[in-house]
Amino acid sequence: MRKSFTVTAQDTSGNARTGRIRTPHGDIETPAFAPVASQGTVKALLHDQVEKLGAQVILVNAYHLFLRPGLETIAACGGIHDFISWTRPILSDSGGFQIYSLTPLVKVTQEGVRFSSHLDGTKIFLRPEDVVDIQRSLGTDIAMVLDYFLPFPSAKARMKEAVKTTTFWARRSKERFLEKPTRQQLWGISQGSVFWDLRRQSIEELLAIGFDGYALGGLGIGEPKGELMETLEKADSLVPRDKPRYLMGMGYIEDILEAIERGIDLFDCVLPTRNARNGTIFSSRGKIVIKNQKYARDERPIDENCSCYTCRHFSRAYLRHLYEREEISSAVLNTIHNLHFYLDNFRKIRQSIALNSYREFKRQLLNQIKEREP
Amino acid sequence: MRKSFTVTAQDTSGNARTGRIRTPHGDIETPAFAPVASQGTVKALLHDQVEKLGAQVILVNAYHLFLRPGLETIAACGGIHDFISWTRPILSDSGGFQIYSLTPLVKVTQEGVRFSSHLDGTKIFLRPEDVVDIQRSLGTDIAMVLDYFLPFPSAKARMKEAVKTTTFWARRSKERFLEKPTRQQLWGISQGSVFWDLRRQSIEELLAIGFDGYALGGLGIGEPKGELMETLEKADSLVPRDKPRYLMGMGYIEDILEAIERGIDLFDCVLPTRNARNGTIFSSRGKIVIKNQKYARDERPIDENCSCYTCRHFSRAYLRHLYEREEISSAVLNTIHNLHFYLDNFRKIRQSIALNSYREFKRQLLNQIKEREP
Repeated sequence: MRKSFTVTAQDTSGNARTGRIRTPHGDIETPAFAPVASQGTVKALLHDQVEKLGAQVILVNAYHLFLRPGLETIAACGGIHDFISWTRPILSDSGGFQIYSLTPLVKVTQEGVRFSSHLDGTKIFLRPEDVVDIQRSLGTDIAMVLDYFLPFPSAKARMKEAVKTTTFWARRSKERFLEKPTRQQLWGISQGSVFWDLRRQSIEELLAIGFDGYALGGLGIGEPKGELMETLEKADSLVPRDKPRYLMGMGYIEDILEAIERGIDLFDCVLPTRNARNGTIFSSRGKIVIKNQKYARDERPIDENCSCYTCRHFSRAYLRHLYEREEISSAVLNTIHNLHFYLDNFRKIRQSIALNSYREFKRQLLNQIKEREP
Repeated sequence: MRKSFTVTAQDTSGNARTGRIRTPHGDIETPAFAPVASQGTVKALLHDQVEKLGAQVILVNAYHLFLRPGLETIAACGGIHDFISWTRPILSDSGGFQIYSLTPLVKVTQEGVRFSSHLDGTKIFLRPEDVVDIQRSLGTDIAMVLDYFLPFPSAKARMKEAVKTTTFWARRSKERFLEKPTRQQLWGISQGSVFWDLRRQSIEELLAIGFDGYALGGLGIGEPKGELMETLEKADSLVPRDKPRYLMGMGYIEDILEAIERGIDLFDCVLPTRNARNGTIFSSRGKIVIKNQKYARDERPIDENCSCYTCRHFSRAYLRHLYEREEISSAVLNTIHNLHFYLDNFRKIRQSIALNSYREFKRQLLNQIKEREP
């Protein structure tokens, strides 16, 4: 059997590396950014646009799809790839984060999590085994275990319990997963916030169970940046080099650059797509809030150096007009640009690692981004 | 000077004809359908999608653009083509319809129209000369005069006044238009509803003034279909064959087919784009209301015979899911299909006229569309 992950290059200035995740729907070159497609579509974009932007994998949300359109519908339509007509790899988030953050009346027991649907209040009980089954039914390439997520800050005693539950569920998830052969991968998610003893315990327990990849959950939600980076560094030394690491939900490019230097291989975040819809546009020279009056007659593109469709054709003045008029094409054009900014930088990141010049690339990009709004 | 319009083929089974409208930004093969881009964007689509769908001309709205972003902004950005980065022909509606239908407190005098902006209540007074100036400032390829539009039904005495005002304004518009040389075209708009004596008077008065094209306004707003068609037939015999005729705002394909047989060359309507956003999808086998539960697991495309991006890739089940989840891509995919349906049928219409088989084409398409919802 081929290994599901291979390190292909190692930058010697830090722990950044390139790698390749193998899935039934193709390879993912890492470090990789997975655009979020919670409902089976990257918001505001068509699949062909997402592919042309260079996305290698998209992230769907098991919780959202479980609620609507429901597993039976997706199964009847041949699984998630056929249902949404996306041919490349798909990663499914277990939906833990959404259950804890979106739904009212969450009750977590050792057995599982009881909650009310955020759509219609239907009472739902999900065990970790159910969440494995859901993702197997979807047929995603990479499935995530159900974890127990706590907000930041949480008391250490509560976090200790959350880690314990997370491990217990991870073990049950793995057992369920092993019941039937599959080419799907199952990845574990560690918790413990920035309490290193708890985070270490969580990672070590996941390693003992054994997963195809290891995610760090419950980070990037307000903890001090220094403690976050320290946690990433320590986690990096704990997880075997030949296993892919996934920092869930963190999206600022500045943080991503630091995380990659600390051995992270995979990222996802709504930031580029959500900000685009809100009129906040990223560029190599800082960010632009497009509704700003000063852009009303600005004939320059968002970014002179950008090769995306939006920058090749449209002025800031027109983009501001579309945003102000609440045109759908505003969301589309801004999303194309923001996602291009992320995916293009990830291409450059992989290239710089292959050239063993990651630190210099990072330094240059951070300097550019720190400049004032153009 | 080259003629701005040439008839290129005449179908002998009726008065359908193909033609070519010449503009500074290229030719428009008629019969043509102009997708509506009131604010300078076809709602939900990017320009490259609109071009690939085969749109030869788009319609912007002088009233909307006058309010936002304003003429100075558009002029500062090089005119409407540069501002929105659309390289093909652009037709501007004068905005008369919007002034009478969107704004509160409209007061029409012989001098012009006084109204409050539907956006912020600002009091505005526009004379027909101003509306010519606005469209000259925009730099559209085809400008429309300001007309006086009345709802249906309106008393004949009021309609008589409206025709009188429309003619008076048309004359002043033409005089203003002649003050400076331009490659822009100015088209007149007749009123008179289905009162043939008034409509005839309106058309004859416009003909006496002389315009590059002749639009029929104030139709398709509730008048009996038979009277509408009779009006088109009579108008057809009144307007010289070498002048293009434009039926404003009428969008049902059934009506369009009849109007083309009665010598109409140009159409615009929000129907395909607005309906798309509301989940109503046209097809050669009738229309589909995509939110219908019966499509939840329907793996067929909207239309088996359609070659659009939407139909080549996505099932009704997925389109229903996107609509239900209010995803932006729902609006985009439905709009691509609906606009393809219109523009593709217009290509077929032109071809059938060139083959002198328009009546047979019309019969076949009407029979298909009359079938039950698929």
